[in-house]
Amino acid sequence: MSEMQTDAFWMPFTPNRTFKSAPRIVESAEGIYLTEKGGRQVIDATAGLWCSNAGHCRSEIAEAIYQQAKTLDYSSIFNFGHELGFEYSERLIKHTPDGLDHVFFGNSGSEAVESALKIALQYQRVRGKGTRTMFIGREKGYHGVNFGGISVGGIAPNYQGFGQPVKASHMRHTLDIGRNAFSRGLPEHGVELAEDLERLVAFHGADQIAAVIVEPFAGAGGVVLPPKGYLQRLREICDKHDLLLIFDEVISGWGRTGSAFAATEFGVTPDMITSAKGITNATVPLSAVFVSDEIYKTVMTAAPEGAVEFFHGYTYSAHPVACAAGMATLDIYEREGLLTRAAGEIGQYWENALHSLADLDNVIDVRNYGLVGAIELRAPQDLKGKYGAKVSGMAWEAGVMARGIGDALCMSPPLIIEKHEIDTIVDKLRGLISALV
Amino acid sequence: MSEMQTDAFWMPFTPNRTFKSAPRIVESAEGIYLTEKGGRQVIDATAGLWCSNAGHCRSEIAEAIYQQAKTLDYSSIFNFGHELGFEYSERLIKHTPDGLDHVFFGNSGSEAVESALKIALQYQRVRGKGTRTMFIGREKGYHGVNFGGISVGGIAPNYQGFGQPVKASHMRHTLDIGRNAFSRGLPEHGVELAEDLERLVAFHGADQIAAVIVEPFAGAGGVVLPPKGYLQRLREICDKHDLLLIFDEVISGWGRTGSAFAATEFGVTPDMITSAKGITNATVPLSAVFVSDEIYKTVMTAAPEGAVEFFHGYTYSAHPVACAAGMATLDIYEREGLLTRAAGEIGQYWENALHSLADLDNVIDVRNYGLVGAIELRAPQDLKGKYGAKVSGMAWEAGVMARGIGDALCMSPPLIIEKHEIDTIVDKLRGLISALV
Repeated sequence: MSEMQTDAFWMPFTPNRTFKSAPRIVESAEGIYLTEKGGRQVIDATAGLWCSNAGHCRSEIAEAIYQQAKTLDYSSIFNFGHELGFEYSERLIKHTPDGLDHVFFGNSGSEAVESALKIALQYQRVRGKGTRTMFIGREKGYHGVNFGGISVGGIAPNYQGFGQPVKASHMRHTLDIGRNAFSRGLPEHGVELAEDLERLVAFHGADQIAAVIVEPFAGAGGVVLPPKGYLQRLREICDKHDLLLIFDEVISGWGRTGSAFAATEFGVTPDMITSAKGITNATVPLSAVFVSDEIYKTVMTAAPEGAVEFFHGYTYSAHPVACAAGMATLDIYEREGLLTRAAGEIGQYWENALHSLADLDNVIDVRNYGLVGAIELRAPQDLKGKYGAKVSGMAWEAGVMARGIGDALCMSPPLIIEKHEIDTIVDKLRGLISALV
Repeated sequence: MSEMQTDAFWMPFTPNRTFKSAPRIVESAEGIYLTEKGGRQVIDATAGLWCSNAGHCRSEIAEAIYQQAKTLDYSSIFNFGHELGFEYSERLIKHTPDGLDHVFFGNSGSEAVESALKIALQYQRVRGKGTRTMFIGREKGYHGVNFGGISVGGIAPNYQGFGQPVKASHMRHTLDIGRNAFSRGLPEHGVELAEDLERLVAFHGADQIAAVIVEPFAGAGGVVLPPKGYLQRLREICDKHDLLLIFDEVISGWGRTGSAFAATEFGVTPDMITSAKGITNATVPLSAVFVSDEIYKTVMTAAPEGAVEFFHGYTYSAHPVACAAGMATLDIYEREGLLTRAAGEIGQYWENALHSLADLDNVIDVRNYGLVGAIELRAPQDLKGKYGAKVSGMAWEAGVMARGIGDALCMSPPLIIEKHEIDTIVDKLRGLISALV
């Protein structure tokens, strides 16, 4: 490591000075395993950053990328086109909830959010509801880091200091460890949390609100699962007040919960879904907004014939290489049944394995669903709120990549994980957590 | 084409209904040539969308992407790392103006802009100038389509209807065809346009302004070149009032003007440069902000030891496959001398060729610099402001991909273009424009 120059690269969301003083460098990856520089193997229990759902370095994705980069590496998609964007869109909507049959592409989850917010504004305006320009998000919600996303988001350091320039108001957080400690799957307690949306609608006025945006389960907020009935009640309230409902499924999509999308898993259909990460198995940056027929048709028919219907888009929207990666990823998901695998035996095994840690003194909660989970730790007083990052570093040394969020260790292993590999993760964490002072 | 399903794909910045009734589909590409479905060859006179600077489907980039996708397809870069991000950053800053020695990665030009604006806010805040939260952009400026970008941007349909939620004010446009018709290279007339910045600073108060952001030449605004001395004067005014200056070089970067960056070409060093497109030869989505030492060091040392210095970043920041594509692209640029090629004979040839169209009745201006140019057309009354899109369609039929912006045809050919290929483009356009009624 001594030869690596570290000064030029400004690392994202990382304590740069601390990291650069002792870098943790991944050199290669295969399946659920990472190889650190020097040769040590580490289990990737986070699927990268909630994204390498089919496991790392799948050869057929690499082949598809290669062939595409040799054939059509790029072509403008503004007023011109290539077949991949159309073909891939048709394939994607086979996996989305019924009625979400249109696809708007960006390059990141953050851009999917900006796009969804702008689509909501456009829809409200062209249907004659132009006063509806504000959004309702949620405390601890994460919707990326562009200015729209930090406005509707609710993780304090991400917006404090930058402001929330897009007008937004935020529902209360849904994590209540006291009432739900060690619950399995979705927490039991009530739908009354969703009533917080009624409060905000009454406060601001429905005629001011374009859309409500939530993650079905909050990822970067610390794997916070929706209480039973919560999402259904949000849908009812949105319908009552004619508000759009957007699910940010950048993390929850592509099999994480046991269905292709959490919307399907939890039986609630939003008006838009944002997606990224697992969409290409994280091999090439790409994101998408899945949009309802109602929104699409309304926007399309509002503009005069021959006009651009929506002044929005990215140079790399539907990038050919990203589309090729995405289609090869769908091939794997479909052939190997990965999108529903977490709903089966392996999800149950994951739940039992994580909950086997519940009796450790330093564990104050375990949360899980499908193939995602969090272990909430009892933090020493002086490390409260940032203990997860410290323990995450120790987990790395012990051979497990897990993400520290607040005082929790969060995990979302590749969907291909096997039982013995879950055992290995949990054994290593048991040893580590037991030894914490 | 009859079998292609077109309903699911919501095309960006495109009249969807019109396009889908008669799609223009590119199937493959090589060098400066596109092959349309059916086999017809078209010259890509726009380098995709100002981005395929080294020409299409360069085999060594495809190979680099392939090898990387097989070795390390993705790894989290938050609190973890891979060597590519560090190595690539060190290589990139060899091409940036002196003092811009740090790199913050995103996935698109739009995200580079959001990142630069957030870096500016962070810098002002941590150095104790927290009242400096607004930005100065420019009419006709294009800075992407996320909420920060449309706020500082100045192309009406891109923000009208969505708002400009990040506080911004806009300098006047710099295009004055009447005074500069058929000028070659940079327009002659004066630096007084830059004084518009003084007017806005006086109006808002310097202590309210975080940064000024401009494209050295406006791309999507219609290839609008800076009058001589304009950028220098902006720099002087920014220095006088302690404002940051950001150059959006998403289009002007990577050899378009005859230097790696327009900042170098025009002899003005900003505090940040945004970059994308040519950075990977458009083969994999990636963008960067190049940041001054002063900003980087100020932000890094303001946070307590061990803390995250800047709460911002993207899952795919420094994506390994994108870094590999970027380094292979640099190999080509460096080996083939492409970054300065436009400053030589070929740039002069381009200028002479474009200006040979100046005597056509339907041409009211020709603008050029390096390997970029625009032909401003006399539009029929009923098509004023949108004639470019119509003529762009006709150019496509004639075998040239050129971009219609307002009433202009805009071009930015791959930097590998040869003289006889410029002749072909101009011959085809001469025939087309001569036949316009």
